Amino acid sequence: MIYLDNAATTQMKQEVLDEMMPYFREYYGNASAVYELGNKSKYAIDVARDRAASLLHTKAERIFFTSGGSESDNWAIIKAAEMLKDKGRHLITSSIEHPAVINTMKALRDEGFEVTFLPVDEKGFVSVESVKNAIRDDTTLISIMTANNEIGTIESIAEIGELAHENGILFHTDAVQAFGQIPINPDEMNIDMLSASSHKIYGPKGVGLLYLSPKASRIRSLIHGGGQERNKRAGTENVPGIVGFGKACELAASSINERMQQETELRDYFIKKVQGEIPLTYLNGAEGKDRLPGNVNIGFKFIEAESALILLDQHGIAASSGSACTAGSIDPSHVLLAIGRNETQARESLRFTLSDTTTKEELDKTVEVLKEIIEMLRSTNLFYQDYMEKN
Amino acid sequence: MIYLDNAATTQMKQEVLDEMMPYFREYYGNASAVYELGNKSKYAIDVARDRAASLLHTKAERIFFTSGGSESDNWAIIKAAEMLKDKGRHLITSSIEHPAVINTMKALRDEGFEVTFLPVDEKGFVSVESVKNAIRDDTTLISIMTANNEIGTIESIAEIGELAHENGILFHTDAVQAFGQIPINPDEMNIDMLSASSHKIYGPKGVGLLYLSPKASRIRSLIHGGGQERNKRAGTENVPGIVGFGKACELAASSINERMQQETELRDYFIKKVQGEIPLTYLNGAEGKDRLPGNVNIGFKFIEAESALILLDQHGIAASSGSACTAGSIDPSHVLLAIGRNETQARESLRFTLSDTTTKEELDKTVEVLKEIIEMLRSTNLFYQDYMEKN
Repeated sequence: MIYLDNAATTQMKQEVLDEMMPYFREYYGNASAVYELGNKSKYAIDVARDRAASLLHTKAERIFFTSGGSESDNWAIIKAAEMLKDKGRHLITSSIEHPAVINTMKALRDEGFEVTFLPVDEKGFVSVESVKNAIRDDTTLISIMTANNEIGTIESIAEIGELAHENGILFHTDAVQAFGQIPINPDEMNIDMLSASSHKIYGPKGVGLLYLSPKASRIRSLIHGGGQERNKRAGTENVPGIVGFGKACELAASSINERMQQETELRDYFIKKVQGEIPLTYLNGAEGKDRLPGNVNIGFKFIEAESALILLDQHGIAASSGSACTAGSIDPSHVLLAIGRNETQARESLRFTLSDTTTKEELDKTVEVLKEIIEMLRSTNLFYQDYMEKN
Repeated sequence: MIYLDNAATTQMKQEVLDEMMPYFREYYGNASAVYELGNKSKYAIDVARDRAASLLHTKAERIFFTSGGSESDNWAIIKAAEMLKDKGRHLITSSIEHPAVINTMKALRDEGFEVTFLPVDEKGFVSVESVKNAIRDDTTLISIMTANNEIGTIESIAEIGELAHENGILFHTDAVQAFGQIPINPDEMNIDMLSASSHKIYGPKGVGLLYLSPKASRIRSLIHGGGQERNKRAGTENVPGIVGFGKACELAASSINERMQQETELRDYFIKKVQGEIPLTYLNGAEGKDRLPGNVNIGFKFIEAESALILLDQHGIAASSGSACTAGSIDPSHVLLAIGRNETQARESLRFTLSDTTTKEELDKTVEVLKEIIEMLRSTNLFYQDYMEKN
């Protein structure tokens, strides 16, 4: 099987699992307890926090472990909005955010907040100018993703963060897709809150983090209870999960430059080859340095992506359409609609995710299979036949 | 090492780990994806949900997986209170709840809700009469724990639930400590919402569940985002964790009667032996069927529990004082204060948790060590010497 679906980067590394193993049955103490076994867990969490902080070039005290990216997004957005509600109730985000941001914003809207969902351009960029124009006296929070999960476009985070700070506004970024894939330095990039997830960087599922700058660290807890995570996130610590996440961060930090170079080369090779060998295709999202190294999203005219996915699966290739969390639903991707694609185009686009184990041979094989599948699907499409007759 | 601390029941079973293993690196698909690998994850979650439902004698559709007991408590209480806020803003709970309930109630109080923290009697019982007297026209939610984590007292849940329903009030129970240890049937016990945790029943940390009755299933999400858990709890599913929790539920269901009998016998043997061999001791909490099979909490006059814990640890015995989440803090247990102990008494009490692997020999050894330690600690205590001279 060739894995180019959005779970491609989620296969846990053996080194990560090895690091976790002793914490399942041997060192199973409660990290908040006082005895020896508890200290083992406590120390292991400290190490993991250092490693996560290191990947973000920041201090360990700014890292708070959560159950994942969605919890981190909800925590940051809801609690920042609530903390500042006496100052204002206007929030700014983009129209291509992950559902964990969009649906959280919508939930806040139901509670009396006003939310501006900024449009993006045809490559998926949120313009700094549009953010500037949306800022009002009662704006308290801006949340713009670091990079888009579907089309890979990397946003102008540092500039948007600077603009937010000039206007006394808190800035959150959903970095789930970018964390560990491109360099991020929240302290230098004017980021107050940053959400990340373990399973997107070959770590275990069910773990994530929220980075909080000193200014943002006053937000209240989303989950109240015991004093874990310095009284910010209650619940017995998921020690093996946190340990695994820490190891994944360490591996990501040490390999980031090499991975970026390798994946960028393979990505551009694949895009060029698909477009060269299969007619009537187009790239969704940005190019070059403005695109996540491992992201490819291509529209194939006159096909249904869902049918292509099934055929690819039968040929031993896993790919995706739309975002992970709305796959299976019949709604077209909100991201593709936001960059100006129509519903038909949104339904003819396929997403390929390159991981650090993706090879040129796998991509060659994928192009070969794609060629055959796309041709077959088009051959039964009356609109395609009609188009070909006219062109 | 003899483990009688509150993490005693948290050492994951080998069978649980074995069941989880394939889902770390082999079947790592996103359970919400459409392709083959995703289906493996989806099916595994279905099996786990059936197993968890089976332990609660209920339907799978009423089980929603979360990141743990604290999240489940927060979700149930906050979202039920918010859903019913137009009907009323009065909530009822007890003064011996876990911090995940108490601090969530306090957070709601800060947002304009009124909370009655019911007192308990000297054994830790919340009387049904006191609940009845606290109910007002604007009461919308009652949350009383199934059994107390520190002193093991099992509350009259079915009667309190009945009372809640007679008054059109939603009933939540924090069953984290009781789940899998004593039989619970939420459908028959008038429970609308029930929180449970995996790591208390030899399952992995970082996983829990919230049971929602049809009536309670209208509460909103605590974590918004993708459509996971039937649109109720967003976030990529922690597949290995959920699989492990399911296995732990299955093991718990098949062994519950045997464990209850075995642990109850050992518990009563240990309590009797400690009280028989060490003078000036007293039991905290209820007795017999009204106490969790695996819970022992004994006060040793004229000692400091924290010192005893360190000495026990040096002798290879892990025990606890206070609750897990406030250990390390210098505050005396709120549960012991609530049952009428004074601060001195709260600081002289030790908690021992029996697991399904605890043996009579371990308990004999523990009594032997305790005898020596308690005698030593008392020998340097001037109040003890004074007391002995006068008595």
